[in-house]
Amino acid sequence: MRPSGRDLDSLRSVTIETNVTRHAEGSCLVRMGDTHVLCTASIEERTPPFLKNTGLGWVTAEYGMLPRATTTRNRREAASGKQTGRTVEIQRLIGRSLRAGIDRSAMGERQITVDCDVLQADGGTRCAAITGGWVALRLAVNKLLKAGVIASDPIVDHVAAISAGVYAGQPVLDLDYAEDSVAGVDGNFVMTGAGRLIEVQMSAEGATFSRTEMDQLMGLAEAGVTALVAVQKAATT
Amino acid sequence: MRPSGRDLDSLRSVTIETNVTRHAEGSCLVRMGDTHVLCTASIEERTPPFLKNTGLGWVTAEYGMLPRATTTRNRREAASGKQTGRTVEIQRLIGRSLRAGIDRSAMGERQITVDCDVLQADGGTRCAAITGGWVALRLAVNKLLKAGVIASDPIVDHVAAISAGVYAGQPVLDLDYAEDSVAGVDGNFVMTGAGRLIEVQMSAEGATFSRTEMDQLMGLAEAGVTALVAVQKAATT
Amino acid sequence: MRPSGRDLDSLRSVTIETNVTRHAEGSCLVRMGDTHVLCTASIEERTPPFLKNTGLGWVTAEYGMLPRATTTRNRREAASGKQTGRTVEIQRLIGRSLRAGIDRSAMGERQITVDCDVLQADGGTRCAAITGGWVALRLAVNKLLKAGVIASDPIVDHVAAISAGVYAGQPVLDLDYAEDSVAGVDGNFVMTGAGRLIEVQMSAEGATFSRTEMDQLMGLAEAGVTALVAVQKAATT
Amino acid sequence: MRPSGRDLDSLRSVTIETNVTRHAEGSCLVRMGDTHVLCTASIEERTPPFLKNTGLGWVTAEYGMLPRATTTRNRREAASGKQTGRTVEIQRLIGRSLRAGIDRSAMGERQITVDCDVLQADGGTRCAAITGGWVALRLAVNKLLKAGVIASDPIVDHVAAISAGVYAGQPVLDLDYAEDSVAGVDGNFVMTGAGRLIEVQMSAEGATFSRTEMDQLMGLAEAGVTALVAVQKAATT
Amino acid sequence: MRPSGRDLDSLRSVTIETNVTRHAEGSCLVRMGDTHVLCTASIEERTPPFLKNTGLGWVTAEYGMLPRATTTRNRREAASGKQTGRTVEIQRLIGRSLRAGIDRSAMGERQITVDCDVLQADGGTRCAAITGGWVALRLAVNKLLKAGVIASDPIVDHVAAISAGVYAGQPVLDLDYAEDSVAGVDGNFVMTGAGRLIEVQMSAEGATFSRTEMDQLMGLAEAGVTALVAVQKAATT
Amino acid sequence: MRPSGRDLDSLRSVTIETNVTRHAEGSCLVRMGDTHVLCTASIEERTPPFLKNTGLGWVTAEYGMLPRATTTRNRREAASGKQTGRTVEIQRLIGRSLRAGIDRSAMGERQITVDCDVLQADGGTRCAAITGGWVALRLAVNKLLKAGVIASDPIVDHVAAISAGVYAGQPVLDLDYAEDSVAGVDGNFVMTGAGRLIEVQMSAEGATFSRTEMDQLMGLAEAGVTALVAVQKAATT
Repeated sequence: MRPSGRDLDSLRSVTIETNVTRHAEGSCLVRMGDTHVLCTASIEERTPPFLKNTGLGWVTAEYGMLPRATTTRNRREAASGKQTGRTVEIQRLIGRSLRAGIDRSAMGERQITVDCDVLQADGGTRCAAITGGWVALRLAVNKLLKAGVIASDPIVDHVAAISAGVYAGQPVLDLDYAEDSVAGVDGNFVMTGAGRLIEVQMSAEGATFSRTEMDQLMGLAEAGVTALVAVQKAATT
Repeated sequence: MRPSGRDLDSLRSVTIETNVTRHAEGSCLVRMGDTHVLCTASIEERTPPFLKNTGLGWVTAEYGMLPRATTTRNRREAASGKQTGRTVEIQRLIGRSLRAGIDRSAMGERQITVDCDVLQADGGTRCAAITGGWVALRLAVNKLLKAGVIASDPIVDHVAAISAGVYAGQPVLDLDYAEDSVAGVDGNFVMTGAGRLIEVQMSAEGATFSRTEMDQLMGLAEAGVTALVAVQKAATT
Repeated sequence: MRPSGRDLDSLRSVTIETNVTRHAEGSCLVRMGDTHVLCTASIEERTPPFLKNTGLGWVTAEYGMLPRATTTRNRREAASGKQTGRTVEIQRLIGRSLRAGIDRSAMGERQITVDCDVLQADGGTRCAAITGGWVALRLAVNKLLKAGVIASDPIVDHVAAISAGVYAGQPVLDLDYAEDSVAGVDGNFVMTGAGRLIEVQMSAEGATFSRTEMDQLMGLAEAGVTALVAVQKAATT
Repeated sequence: MRPSGRDLDSLRSVTIETNVTRHAEGSCLVRMGDTHVLCTASIEERTPPFLKNTGLGWVTAEYGMLPRATTTRNRREAASGKQTGRTVEIQRLIGRSLRAGIDRSAMGERQITVDCDVLQADGGTRCAAITGGWVALRLAVNKLLKAGVIASDPIVDHVAAISAGVYAGQPVLDLDYAEDSVAGVDGNFVMTGAGRLIEVQMSAEGATFSRTEMDQLMGLAEAGVTALVAVQKAATT
Repeated sequence: MRPSGRDLDSLRSVTIETNVTRHAEGSCLVRMGDTHVLCTASIEERTPPFLKNTGLGWVTAEYGMLPRATTTRNRREAASGKQTGRTVEIQRLIGRSLRAGIDRSAMGERQITVDCDVLQADGGTRCAAITGGWVALRLAVNKLLKAGVIASDPIVDHVAAISAGVYAGQPVLDLDYAEDSVAGVDGNFVMTGAGRLIEVQMSAEGATFSRTEMDQLMGLAEAGVTALVAVQKAATT
Repeated sequence: MRPSGRDLDSLRSVTIETNVTRHAEGSCLVRMGDTHVLCTASIEERTPPFLKNTGLGWVTAEYGMLPRATTTRNRREAASGKQTGRTVEIQRLIGRSLRAGIDRSAMGERQITVDCDVLQADGGTRCAAITGGWVALRLAVNKLLKAGVIASDPIVDHVAAISAGVYAGQPVLDLDYAEDSVAGVDGNFVMTGAGRLIEVQMSAEGATFSRTEMDQLMGLAEAGVTALVAVQKAATT
């Protein structure tokens, strides 16, 4: 019944290939089906002005999509001179999510910027970006630990994300574009490895949903994140 | 225990004053405690290009905050040349929320723009904007109905919103700024008069939350929205 | 003969309500007929770079108009990414006018920003902004005096402004929108409480005027400003 | 007593050289002492959208200053990405002034853009731009008349402008930079050949002025404009 | 003597992997050593306004670099709100180069946009973009031919590009970043498969060069392009 | 056979008038036929941040064109809010070219900005800007030398530029607009007084060229630059 033939609670095939670029302190290419996101983590020995002399570090994220990552070509944001509202929303979400999994007082006064660039899109890019972004962050922090720049590991838990929504009247996990573009209700769930919630965003466009549906989507998401965390573990150890 | 002395499940005092400006087709000033938002609804006899000849109407929203609505002055967005990510996020949320409560095929090919401008801020501005924005929209649609421009009422239900969060370890309803600025977990809940969900956004900054907490916040919010819908009814009938 | 039935030399009804917002050091809502402007004065303990170590303070102003303050909705300047030429002109005028009434060496090295936001427009918004802006500035300076932050009052006189123009061949005071939109000659007059001139701007669009007409408009304006200063006095003492 | 040794009511030496560029329909280089402005008038066979099918033409102006027209180099506006408030104010003034001297219904539905670019600045650039801009406009209209494109002359009178201000306590005509930079009161007067007023802008920065001073400046300006109109006549006939 | 140990006239290892993205009409990933560029060609059934009704098609290019494609992170152009001068120069060069190899009258009135996004940079990105961009263009045109949308092949020849410069006093081919960053003279050579020249750009920063050196670099480049065309042929047949 | 009747290897008439503006440290008006460019050199006692404490100076250039320098009016870049790609390319070329002729370690830590503003355009504006820009730079450096601010002359040689292209199948020198707008191959050659090359840019739009043609154009250019350097010498000694 799903366009892809997947079961209602099936993730797409997920792979995380690490150290894919030469320059970044941490990097990976995460593939969730046909959604491919290149994630890099860059360490800079400075923090934003509002953190000067607080002893705290900062993790921030930026998100982009290549113009032809999508079915039809989108205008390049650099050429149009501004990021869309969607881009801004997504990169703020990625940043908040990753910060929830790190102890900023153990980072030292430095900033790690996680860039998530979508090379190919088929739905669920923001969730893939969070899941892959965490891996890039993990690898960059490993480098700091190995070099002895920081003494204790500031990362407190895994952070991963998955979508779930109501497609053709059924709750389904990990919507691809064919599902996402027609689903009236759509949620993104960011959780830790221990199953704690970081961010829940459920949204209806031209529709509404019940608490029961909300609970069903939440249940699907919990299983999905558990599976993603296992993939993260395999990729980073 | 709350800075304001309110009970955990208490709303601030809410008033909605209607028809506060001379030019707009619908308008109100919504006050939730010290948060004051001026909402206007403007009807235009045109739709965005992507709706040309579809028979559908459009509801959109814009959000702004006067520079000194806040404790310290913020830079005027018009002067800095761009809207912040926060502004963009909020106005997209208001638009989606209001569209969920209207039958766009019954609107005709016209657009209603709901402007929500915060005159004074004390937390919860986006929720106040949705609750007040619906009232402005209701009044503008009433004008179309009275004038016979549209035959049947396109508004299918009330739309209202409230925040809830975890403050000092306790789930509390309708956070004011003193609470909001220190709460680690914070949610915004948009619902219909019938109690259906439109948008749920729960977010932790530097923290996480459990499903139990999520359910508690949801429960508080349901009661809060019920009370707000009663205020909307009193204001519009 | 005037659309409003007013005499040629009649002001609209003027009220100034003070302390209308909780956060600003000084604030008022000035109403000149259906023109309503919210004015706030914000004190910051810093000056623009060009005044560093000069011992002088600075007063500046910003002006905005809510999108639906007008008969038809205007595009939000924050959304279009720039302030219009009209906005820039007006806020420069307000700033110059208020600076003419203050001894900047007695302010100390601090800046007061006066924000004038038009909630509802019916002509004469820049004059209302100056008249109300002075009241907000007066109240903010009072706060500095009361707190003992500055020793002597830097405000040397009242500053108020009124429009006058040629409508249907007759010189009239305080044009409303119905008059302003068709008047070929239109002037704005900024004066002190003592009747000294600060700024005179008379302008013809597609027309010209004589020195006699100029003198008539000036005479009307002098009487108008005298009346406005009395309202300012009543509001601030 | 004036830095230049001029009498209080003396203009600087004024020359207007016409047809200085090959491409523009009308052009001149106006020199008022060391202030040199290149003015071109460009005819386009289209009008702004708001004039479609009204039978009216349009005259508009743009103003610029080369980066090193001034004592110290100013940032190039094209490089900084926006025109300053001063530039916007000036070009709006030039446009309004020139429109006051033309019968737009006799122009036909076309637009004439007058570009005024300051090659060297020594005070009074906006007045020089208006005086020279009118000459460029006159020459461009002559071309339309000669070609038979329009039947009757739409230009109804000369338009010229001069500054006057209070320098060292004395009313003086045509301020140069040495005077302008210290004058507390400063006015720009735009008039027709017949001595009618188009625009009067008198402004005090950190000072005030009396009606007597205003009348003195106006008197100086009337004589100054009379002299400038004579130079315009010599240049265009 | 070269940092990489290559001979003076040696290219880095070059590979072109085709059809690397699912959505684009043509795509490839070109690798010249550690420089990796993702090229996509997107067909749109419209041309820029200046080509309306001319029967001609258009080929244009855009260039971007991921923020961490480089040794240290560069600011994202979409975030800073404008493309750098370097980006603009490069994308104009790519567009001109590709247009030199296509008969635009045989394309029909359609546009092909070639996006070249640098995933990893190690010098020579613009040359890699041209070489890979041509492959993406070739594949997209093949699709049009196969579908019968166009009858005859508009592509008249291969287009490829290579750099050459003076490093440590010696003419070398295909500079990598270690060489490029210190070379005083640096050239980019775009040629056809038949060895005709399309674009030659030789440039000295803080140095000069002789005609003899110019001829040596040109000679190196001719051999380099011949080799690149062979790789293009292998990838597209 | 050339529209102007010139021989294939003839320059247009060239004049360089120096010290044409009062404020700039160095200035000239260069005329190559109907192409007129005003060049000024401005000295600032600071360098860009990347040169702090290196002991090196900097030479940079900006380029602009008056809106009606051309046959039809172009949009003013300051009004459109950005410089075109063409402008950016040209000003980067001018800066690189002038830097190649100066010993930056002998300049001291100061910056010289060369502004090249086209008053009238008839092809070849970038070459005229380089040739005239060098003269402005020479004059500004002379002022530093005469004032004893720098001890030895940092200028190591003349820098001048000329175009050459293939027009109607023939190699021609110094293309004017009538030739430039139809030439398929077009080059700009920047050289020193000693005949060393600084920058060679040859470019085909919708065409290609042979090495023989390249050599012919280069030969023409060498003779052209020799003639321009003689004019520079006459103007600066």
